[in-house]
Amino acid sequence: MAAAAKVVLLVAAVRRPRPLIHVLHRVLGSAGDLGQRAGVPCDSWRLAVEAYNKRDWKTVPANCDDYVGHYMLDRQYRRDSRVVVDEAIAYAEGLKVAGNGKEVWVFDIDETSLSNLPYYAKHGFGTKPYNATSFNEYVLEGSAPVLMGTLRLFKKLISLGIKPRAITVTNLRRQGYSGWEKLLLKPIGFKGTAIGYKSGARQKLQNAGYVIVGNIGDQWSDILGAPEGARNFKLPDPIYYIG
Amino acid sequence: MAAAAKVVLLVAAVRRPRPLIHVLHRVLGSAGDLGQRAGVPCDSWRLAVEAYNKRDWKTVPANCDDYVGHYMLDRQYRRDSRVVVDEAIAYAEGLKVAGNGKEVWVFDIDETSLSNLPYYAKHGFGTKPYNATSFNEYVLEGSAPVLMGTLRLFKKLISLGIKPRAITVTNLRRQGYSGWEKLLLKPIGFKGTAIGYKSGARQKLQNAGYVIVGNIGDQWSDILGAPEGARNFKLPDPIYYIG
Repeated sequence: MAAAAKVVLLVAAVRRPRPLIHVLHRVLGSAGDLGQRAGVPCDSWRLAVEAYNKRDWKTVPANCDDYVGHYMLDRQYRRDSRVVVDEAIAYAEGLKVAGNGKEVWVFDIDETSLSNLPYYAKHGFGTKPYNATSFNEYVLEGSAPVLMGTLRLFKKLISLGIKPRAITVTNLRRQGYSGWEKLLLKPIGFKGTAIGYKSGARQKLQNAGYVIVGNIGDQWSDILGAPEGARNFKLPDPIYYIG
Repeated sequence: MAAAAKVVLLVAAVRRPRPLIHVLHRVLGSAGDLGQRAGVPCDSWRLAVEAYNKRDWKTVPANCDDYVGHYMLDRQYRRDSRVVVDEAIAYAEGLKVAGNGKEVWVFDIDETSLSNLPYYAKHGFGTKPYNATSFNEYVLEGSAPVLMGTLRLFKKLISLGIKPRAITVTNLRRQGYSGWEKLLLKPIGFKGTAIGYKSGARQKLQNAGYVIVGNIGDQWSDILGAPEGARNFKLPDPIYYIG
């Protein structure tokens, strides 16, 4: 069995060359293999998170540290995100846009418009409890990179005459995103759930005569709660949960 | 590369002995590998289906025939389903049940309580358009096997004093499921969407004084639409879409 395992690594290296996308890139195994290790089945756990079966989780299961790291840094995360964005663009292209400036698309920021992966890669890929101090230090750097797929959607919407709107609960910076209709930021000290805040913000948009033709976020709390967007898109996020 | 591919097969056989769960079981490759072939990225497509990003699709992408077949017949489908059921049971066990007989849990039938995999395995794993004639012939056999995970949930709920309720749109047979509160079957010739029918059926339950503490299905149309269950569970189904 040891010999067989050795061959696996060799073969994996031949068949699946991984692009060097991050200095913290790990070098062993693949997400698929690690997903079948003992303990929590990490691939099934991730699917349960994405399909909103798993809720109110505090941290990534300890044995899924490597799995989530590989998922985020290998091609899988970007490929999964690309398929979501492609679907969103196909939907947007099929809309009959009135072009009256009242048609908006709501964007979440963290892990949707911008990536905080540089932070989470240094802090256990979600396996450690949220640390406001260190996360805020990171935010003040203003270094979060853009998620290219979302920027592609953003630009496509503008070209179609649909206005991007951002509703966010945490940090925000601009990296190539220009043309936001307006930014709604959660007031410091806001009490209540993320679903309550975000659906309330959408209600205000609707009351102001806007039509929410689409909504994209990495959390189900970005999406759920009346009024919902005419169509919603859930980007992958196996690192943290906001309820 | 040919040599490498050959080694992969050998290693796969050593590392992942597959239980003989189906006479049509395929013998080549693994779902994870096939998910990275050219064409539609099948693993990302499946995730997009499960997270409700992909909607109104008619058939599985042609290049994902093998991928979906392996997913369903290998361990992955059962493992993904098990994690969902485990979560549902944990939720149910945490409920404070009044035990007045009014607390119900709604079950879908096809691909939730019973599996039609023997049919789909012979008909391209969802890559071919739905064929009512051949599917109905299969249904008349009454041979669909039980999905053991769902049966485990079913029995647990009964032991907790929660009544299982079935709302179904297609075939139904009993395979170890005894103790249904009542079966609501979609009338032949019903016009309208699955979401409309199923949410209407839940509304009737609620009007009759029932509290829907949970709902489990393999389609988002089993789950969405007011009134929703207090909590919902989406089982995997990459084979077909009902809107």
